[in-house]
Amino acid sequence: MQILLTPETVTHVSELIANRNDEALKNLLEDFHFADIAELIDELDPDEGTYLLKLLDIEITSEVFTEIDPDLREQILKNFSPSEIADELEEMDTDDAVDIISELEDHIQEQVIQCIEDKEHAADIVELLRYDEDTAGGLMAKELVKVKESWTVAGCVREMRKQAENVTRVHSIYVVDEEGKLKGRLSLKDLLTAPTRGHISDIYIPKVDYVNVHTELDEVARIMQKYDLEAIPVVDDNQVLVGRITIDDIVDFIKEEADKDYQLAAGITEDVEAGDGLFKQTRARLPWLLIGMMGGLGAATIISNFETIMTQYPKLLIFVPLIQATAGNVGVQSSAIIVQGLANDTLKGHLMARMLKETSVALVNGISLAIIVVMVSHFVFFTSYLESISIGVALITVIIIAAVVGNLIPLFLNSRGVDPAVATGPFITTSNDVFGIFTYFLIAKTILGF
Amino acid sequence: MQILLTPETVTHVSELIANRNDEALKNLLEDFHFADIAELIDELDPDEGTYLLKLLDIEITSEVFTEIDPDLREQILKNFSPSEIADELEEMDTDDAVDIISELEDHIQEQVIQCIEDKEHAADIVELLRYDEDTAGGLMAKELVKVKESWTVAGCVREMRKQAENVTRVHSIYVVDEEGKLKGRLSLKDLLTAPTRGHISDIYIPKVDYVNVHTELDEVARIMQKYDLEAIPVVDDNQVLVGRITIDDIVDFIKEEADKDYQLAAGITEDVEAGDGLFKQTRARLPWLLIGMMGGLGAATIISNFETIMTQYPKLLIFVPLIQATAGNVGVQSSAIIVQGLANDTLKGHLMARMLKETSVALVNGISLAIIVVMVSHFVFFTSYLESISIGVALITVIIIAAVVGNLIPLFLNSRGVDPAVATGPFITTSNDVFGIFTYFLIAKTILGF
Repeated sequence: MQILLTPETVTHVSELIANRNDEALKNLLEDFHFADIAELIDELDPDEGTYLLKLLDIEITSEVFTEIDPDLREQILKNFSPSEIADELEEMDTDDAVDIISELEDHIQEQVIQCIEDKEHAADIVELLRYDEDTAGGLMAKELVKVKESWTVAGCVREMRKQAENVTRVHSIYVVDEEGKLKGRLSLKDLLTAPTRGHISDIYIPKVDYVNVHTELDEVARIMQKYDLEAIPVVDDNQVLVGRITIDDIVDFIKEEADKDYQLAAGITEDVEAGDGLFKQTRARLPWLLIGMMGGLGAATIISNFETIMTQYPKLLIFVPLIQATAGNVGVQSSAIIVQGLANDTLKGHLMARMLKETSVALVNGISLAIIVVMVSHFVFFTSYLESISIGVALITVIIIAAVVGNLIPLFLNSRGVDPAVATGPFITTSNDVFGIFTYFLIAKTILGF
Repeated sequence: MQILLTPETVTHVSELIANRNDEALKNLLEDFHFADIAELIDELDPDEGTYLLKLLDIEITSEVFTEIDPDLREQILKNFSPSEIADELEEMDTDDAVDIISELEDHIQEQVIQCIEDKEHAADIVELLRYDEDTAGGLMAKELVKVKESWTVAGCVREMRKQAENVTRVHSIYVVDEEGKLKGRLSLKDLLTAPTRGHISDIYIPKVDYVNVHTELDEVARIMQKYDLEAIPVVDDNQVLVGRITIDDIVDFIKEEADKDYQLAAGITEDVEAGDGLFKQTRARLPWLLIGMMGGLGAATIISNFETIMTQYPKLLIFVPLIQATAGNVGVQSSAIIVQGLANDTLKGHLMARMLKETSVALVNGISLAIIVVMVSHFVFFTSYLESISIGVALITVIIIAAVVGNLIPLFLNSRGVDPAVATGPFITTSNDVFGIFTYFLIAKTILGF
């Protein structure tokens, strides 16, 4: 059923647009799912995309708009008048409408809202715009099916049919009291199997998970994942039911968060794709390289301050890259385990017990590597016994320190309310590089006694 | 509605178990969601967990079993007889039952299956066990609601009520022909609003997304995300409907994949948590450290082969950490962008165009860093003009090479069918380290003319 978008299709569509062959375009795209049309438009230039979006039916394009790349969407919307944008928003669920309208400039936002004919829809959008986009309020949609506990099953079915017309997918039916406060939920299954004369108050399930409009999205995601929910109702501070969040939006959120953590670990500061421009890529990447450079200059300072090594034990210098790489790798490993533990809430036991284990792991790894390195340095690079021992001891020490530092930094950042994921990648590598080289020379100085 | 699990609760439960206070335990846990009981058991030791799981009702424990940590579950199940395990599986959906039974040893698996009284359920489990766990067949459940296209709406509602008893949540009603081949789907909403005398064949939606039992899970996840599906039917090679996958299982899969990629980027080879033992942690971490060590020894070989630098231009050696760190950081950045682009299917345009852009970004970053480093080296570390220029030119070159290599390696691995995520982290850092140092010395040699 899925349509595979080939480069040939894209070229073909481009040609049809250039020839203004509207009939052929409509025929071709008739069987396309809106997500496929969005994927197609992502491959076209903004003017071609605009042409397609103005050509197709609004029932389709309002869905397509929610799926195309936000940067491209911004460009395309510049070719749409406020009233044209309003027409699109009119067809969308409130949460999608808010996503799109919030990308527009303030004065255009106002014009668009005034052009929306369904005043209730407009009011819902304005309400949603008030919430922080990282909270449940910022992600929820107003579209939901709610019934009052005092109704009969038959009355409920009638009312539901009416409400369901505005709701794409009915997940749960929420039950509220006369003041609109959330009381519980009903599954469609229950409704289907209940006697029609009964009252909702007799059959609804009073246990219902919900979140507050101000609940942060990672908490919403955690709850929905943990309890395997497909939708969750959102209440305001008075416990009044004001919206619902569906799992597909949470899936997107989880994916974005994972991408962000991955990018932080790789030393990229903002969401950047291979297709982004030179300026955006540089802005995302240069800061971390500068941090790395500072570390490198720090290391240079340390080395030049141990003059004796430069002159008397130059062979120790050839192992600097080894010490540095190992310190960096160990630090990243340790911090990544802690960052994931924090994110997945799986860190157990006491800090000291964890440190002890981390140190044991580091000791085992350190001794394993040191045995090899000491042998290789002595027999291949002909370092003296004492030099070899210095290298070995330094390697073990550096690994232990890097592991402990890698463990503590994310915990420290987390306790200060900073996303611990920034601790992985270049940040921890750089500090461990510098610290590792310093430790190496200090131990060599102690053992060789200069 | 969520219960916050405090350390006090855990201690309290431990005490109640020690005192064999069954009544108090049952009362306390009565209001707990099964996911909360699972979280509680994760904090207890295996014997305490076993005690709780044998105490509580099987309707609860069969759900709890699906949520507890797999390692712990394995230990706890050792305290259960095959027939006790069979009782638990009897209550579970087939997909959850398969997850658990597949963790058992082969001969115990057979005994458990023989103890399952519902022979149809047992046969479903045996069928699911056949599929590779990375495919749709390995994740799907057999529980679904299906109706035949020839039925009337009224007959369908009757049959559905019967089937729905075995299905926890009804997402979609699948429509099949007489041979069981998937024809389309019906939403509960449609069924609710259709005239009862009509036939299913008149109201069902023939457009339905589906996957084959052999479809790989990342493809299933991609389709369900792209089309915002909450469930997807699974067909066999004859197009016969054999199961369905729900989004909650896909959410778990997406989360696991993201964790795996993150761990690969951080140089950890298998799923490892802060709580895992010394041996498992070492096994997960040592291999990457060994790769890093090989790189370090490679760098040592390169440095010792440029003897003239050691003796005549020792100041160049103090910038080795800087070159190495920068090469590593640039490589990780570049590869991470490609790895994410491949994962999210957002790599567009031609390879050469992307390379050109990547080179431009590298050039801008390289020149920015080089200006600072050349100034600092000359005015702070008193390197000669030629030495400073060597450092600057080498830095720019190293950054460009690292960017290109970081770009190409994941593409190469991907084209060979290897997960490109292995390319980030220690692998790319190490190769760039070694390559970077070699380039640095080669350029210095050329410019300084020794």
